[in-house]
Amino acid sequence: MSLVVVGSVAYDGVETPHGKVERMLGGACTYIALAASFFTKAQIVGVVGDDFAQEDVDLLTGRGIDLEGLERVPGKTFYWAGVYSPDMNDRATLTTDLNVFADFNPKLPESYRAAPYLLLGNIQPELQRSVRAQMNGVRFVGGDTMNYWIQDYRDQLLATIKDWDFLLINDSEARMLAGEHNLRRAAEKIQSMGPHTLVIKRGEYGAILFQGGDHFMVPGFLLEDVFDPTGAGDSFAGGFMGYLAEKGVDPRHGDIDHQELRRAVIYGSVMGSFCCEKFGVDRFRNLTRAEIDGRYREFKAFTDF
Amino acid sequence: MSLVVVGSVAYDGVETPHGKVERMLGGACTYIALAASFFTKAQIVGVVGDDFAQEDVDLLTGRGIDLEGLERVPGKTFYWAGVYSPDMNDRATLTTDLNVFADFNPKLPESYRAAPYLLLGNIQPELQRSVRAQMNGVRFVGGDTMNYWIQDYRDQLLATIKDWDFLLINDSEARMLAGEHNLRRAAEKIQSMGPHTLVIKRGEYGAILFQGGDHFMVPGFLLEDVFDPTGAGDSFAGGFMGYLAEKGVDPRHGDIDHQELRRAVIYGSVMGSFCCEKFGVDRFRNLTRAEIDGRYREFKAFTDF
Repeated sequence: MSLVVVGSVAYDGVETPHGKVERMLGGACTYIALAASFFTKAQIVGVVGDDFAQEDVDLLTGRGIDLEGLERVPGKTFYWAGVYSPDMNDRATLTTDLNVFADFNPKLPESYRAAPYLLLGNIQPELQRSVRAQMNGVRFVGGDTMNYWIQDYRDQLLATIKDWDFLLINDSEARMLAGEHNLRRAAEKIQSMGPHTLVIKRGEYGAILFQGGDHFMVPGFLLEDVFDPTGAGDSFAGGFMGYLAEKGVDPRHGDIDHQELRRAVIYGSVMGSFCCEKFGVDRFRNLTRAEIDGRYREFKAFTDF
Repeated sequence: MSLVVVGSVAYDGVETPHGKVERMLGGACTYIALAASFFTKAQIVGVVGDDFAQEDVDLLTGRGIDLEGLERVPGKTFYWAGVYSPDMNDRATLTTDLNVFADFNPKLPESYRAAPYLLLGNIQPELQRSVRAQMNGVRFVGGDTMNYWIQDYRDQLLATIKDWDFLLINDSEARMLAGEHNLRRAAEKIQSMGPHTLVIKRGEYGAILFQGGDHFMVPGFLLEDVFDPTGAGDSFAGGFMGYLAEKGVDPRHGDIDHQELRRAVIYGSVMGSFCCEKFGVDRFRNLTRAEIDGRYREFKAFTDF
């Protein structure tokens, strides 16, 4: 079932200990949609400039992604550049040129409005809310945010996530949002803000799912080589939501299936791990569903006791 | 089956965000033996001064721990004091008074020498080796070490662990020992140094078991409150080895049972998590095997998918 994805579509410059790429396709929306496309039909809402390359359009449409909601306007596409620390646990931003993204005001094509699933990438909370308001009868909605919105746009953010089914953030953001260091208590506080489901991403240490009074933990996949962690968290989100959309999970009628949520967290982890194996979105160019299901079984094998 | 444990028996002064204790029973050997005592008979090899309190003797003997190898000499018991950071992920040492521990030269009582299991706590590698040499027909042997021995006593350490079945260290120590940041490749290097089994402790992020070409990962237990992390790693070691001794695991005859090793890692994690719930060894004063098995089942519940 179709999934609407909103967020940045960008070009990135990235340097890691394994090499340097001056300019490659990036952006949260891109990673989310590509990862989700292995499970379900993804429909992008975003904006790019007139420099957006045909080969990048081809990559997205080649994965069956609907670009009707990808606006093209005069000017340059959002550009971000950063450099990772030797252990790749930290990164420094070198450049942030918002360009056409500065005036992003997402408008949903008519054909998107009845989609049952909505994933709101990390953008201004008010914009996330306006997208939510344009949807009719959405079944499962949630998204990401970041420290900047949590600190400086707290009221807007709280008004936005109040109506979400799930929030998907990293551990330091969860602690900041809750004002509580202990993750178990932080999760309780966040769940009282609206989302019945909270997924905390912990990078190389995996993820935690909180739903109702229950929780589920998965360690991070132990890669032989991490080439580039850019987009791993967004790929996690795409795998998580893509799987739920594929399964047609519908929490509006009765309780959500907790086992399906757990499997969705594993598929999210799987997509995040693949993302790190090559620069940018490169691993998604020839990834197969068989490889994805194979890694899902690896997660089973290395966590089972 | 009985387990010989070698290491420090100490008094600790600890300050955490939850409070401060000037002097309480501590030391690696103490935590290991107490945690192991819920699974098997533990036999301590260590040294204390004439200030070692009768109530501490009573605690240990009350848990069935054999103190024949606990030497008492004139002078003061090893004293360590430290203070934890607000998030308890770091600690600063305030005092290290080795006292009688400075001249520790472990001698095994005759009654210990045929014990099938040996766990060598973090002491000078040469001393660890001398203890190993005093044992007859030991079935499963391994232990812990630390950055100091890895850096400044590398040759001694390599000669010592060459004959071990397992090494149990934290992630930064594993990286230092292997000279390799990636944990998967670091584990391969360490396994080529001798131990067929490597357990990497990752604090709040859990643990990884490497054995043969296989690995197993478990997330850390999500505690509501961490009162004092002192001794958690040693309690992990005690639970891990205690369980293997209880089961009579014997890798000398054929392959080691990988499933039992995985369960041992869970029991180690269980004991480490209990240790953090109160100051020092306090949680072990009234812990029950039923609580331990209950938490084992919790690990199953929050990791199963």
